[in-house]
Amino acid sequence: MNYPTISWTKGCVRIIDQTKLPHKLEYINCRHIQTLWDAIKRLSVRGAPALGVAASFGVLLGLKEFKGQDREAFDKHINKVCDYIATSRPTAVNLFNALRDMKQVLKDHLQASVAVLRELLEKKAFEIYELDRTTCRKMGKYGAALIKNGQTLMTVCNAGALATVDYGTALGVFYSAKESGKKFKVYACETRPLLQGARLTAWELLRAKIDVTLICDNMAATLMKQGKVDAIFAGADRIAANGDAANKIGTYSLAVLAKHHGIPFYIVAPFSTFDLNIPTGKQIPIEERDKSEVLGFGAFQAAPKGVKVYNPAFDVTDHQLIKGIVTEKGVITSPYTKNIQKTFQKGR
Amino acid sequence: MNYPTISWTKGCVRIIDQTKLPHKLEYINCRHIQTLWDAIKRLSVRGAPALGVAASFGVLLGLKEFKGQDREAFDKHINKVCDYIATSRPTAVNLFNALRDMKQVLKDHLQASVAVLRELLEKKAFEIYELDRTTCRKMGKYGAALIKNGQTLMTVCNAGALATVDYGTALGVFYSAKESGKKFKVYACETRPLLQGARLTAWELLRAKIDVTLICDNMAATLMKQGKVDAIFAGADRIAANGDAANKIGTYSLAVLAKHHGIPFYIVAPFSTFDLNIPTGKQIPIEERDKSEVLGFGAFQAAPKGVKVYNPAFDVTDHQLIKGIVTEKGVITSPYTKNIQKTFQKGR
Repeated sequence: MNYPTISWTKGCVRIIDQTKLPHKLEYINCRHIQTLWDAIKRLSVRGAPALGVAASFGVLLGLKEFKGQDREAFDKHINKVCDYIATSRPTAVNLFNALRDMKQVLKDHLQASVAVLRELLEKKAFEIYELDRTTCRKMGKYGAALIKNGQTLMTVCNAGALATVDYGTALGVFYSAKESGKKFKVYACETRPLLQGARLTAWELLRAKIDVTLICDNMAATLMKQGKVDAIFAGADRIAANGDAANKIGTYSLAVLAKHHGIPFYIVAPFSTFDLNIPTGKQIPIEERDKSEVLGFGAFQAAPKGVKVYNPAFDVTDHQLIKGIVTEKGVITSPYTKNIQKTFQKGR
Repeated sequence: MNYPTISWTKGCVRIIDQTKLPHKLEYINCRHIQTLWDAIKRLSVRGAPALGVAASFGVLLGLKEFKGQDREAFDKHINKVCDYIATSRPTAVNLFNALRDMKQVLKDHLQASVAVLRELLEKKAFEIYELDRTTCRKMGKYGAALIKNGQTLMTVCNAGALATVDYGTALGVFYSAKESGKKFKVYACETRPLLQGARLTAWELLRAKIDVTLICDNMAATLMKQGKVDAIFAGADRIAANGDAANKIGTYSLAVLAKHHGIPFYIVAPFSTFDLNIPTGKQIPIEERDKSEVLGFGAFQAAPKGVKVYNPAFDVTDHQLIKGIVTEKGVITSPYTKNIQKTFQKGR
């Protein structure tokens, strides 16, 4: 991608305003932490890995608000900033992991001055940023090895450059496959209610000159039945110790359908998406969003006023339905609990 | 329902314009056959049983255009009218069955005068209309017997009063259950791309004071996983001799998900929906509609221009996934080929 989804430029967090895509490529310059919090809340920036980077840059915005040299007050301020950022969205663990890593800098340097800590925090934030870039490219290579020439693939939501700094998780696999000369087609599920597939994935893949066909979410099954889907690649927002993976609503549905049709279903997610403190997917908090998202889209209102709505933003795919989890250290397969542990020990 | 979806009033076919729902209850008075054809094509009137009634009333509109007493010319004209109506939509067999029944009137009365035939055709059209009303109520009773007090049900698209003359197939089951005093809740899948669930089913069930919650299609699986769905009821547009059932896109997806979660999945459809000339669902023609329906909704455009789209309006649910087909002669269960034959012999 030519434009990073998120970057730190002249003391502000610069993000693509994804609510304007695909019609306009506009940026939001977040100079204050409240602006960034709002942007996260209304999904101007979204995608688990991008939220991790956003959170770490958010701490840098918080730094700007602190005056003085008192270390105790500084730590208190940073912790408050982290707590505030943590309230923006509940499901993507990358956000919490990034905040944990930023707070760890304070713990690791108890004797450091405020001035030194400022530098260390900035360094850590950029590490998280750079780690995303390299991690996505590594996952891309591991995932691309799973794709055979001539296949037709499917994806849901947007696990692309727009969900990371600049390359993507599930879509990074497609980019890497294309870079290695493989030919393939992609079906993008539109991903109601907010249509990230139609708005973002279709936009990204068209720009990357990848053969993409848009479908409504409820059309995936009939394509699978027709034998037109060879593999499915999805991102994740949080993965439990047993491999259960929370991702955008609709992912679980695709995984069940894939199993019924004998189609391999892959999750593509970096280490920062794993939450080993959580034994199974049952413990992952699922964000429920406003009913207006389901009643229509934007100004268009489809449903009658007064109808009740259920609007979970995520669902959990059981590890039994996942053929492999593509990480920056390779593809983890069943038995997940054991193999996730092993990969983490190797990787850290 | 207080208002019939379709009726014959003073020489014109009066239909609710369903493209205006749920925001406005407006009628279209079709005085000419072209007006009716257009209304069918753009889904102002839709739903397999309603299309059967619309087709038979369409023939009455065609009658108005014929002058003279020449029987041969009359037959030619009526056949032309039927052929024209048949081009409006390809999947719902009720439409073709109604036209076949109307043409049969000509065959059964080869010696009758044009004046007599006019009366006979009108009589047949009203028979088809009345048959829909009584049939829906019979199916409702058989279906309601499958519902236990306190259950939560799910449906897709609109198989309600708006898909028939005034009661519904799948939703007729809910109306009958309510009339018999049962308490239950319903999840309505919004049914992209044209959102018949959000626009029509939500509107109907709210009016009928049935506890309805709207979801996006991709949320059905997570509800099933949570144990919140006890049974699924859907309509059908054409059922093959082996029980394979074509219905609105997304139905097959629900049926597969229901099987995975051990939830009974029922089709509710009258005899007029069966096409015993077709051995399996593979031979059912599936209408593909314009890409604009998937790119957004109404004036709202979600996807980038130039993206390819796949937009099948229907899918086929294999009979193995269907727990029972609720008809006006009772609930048909597996083995379907044999039991469908048996029910038809009994019913005719």
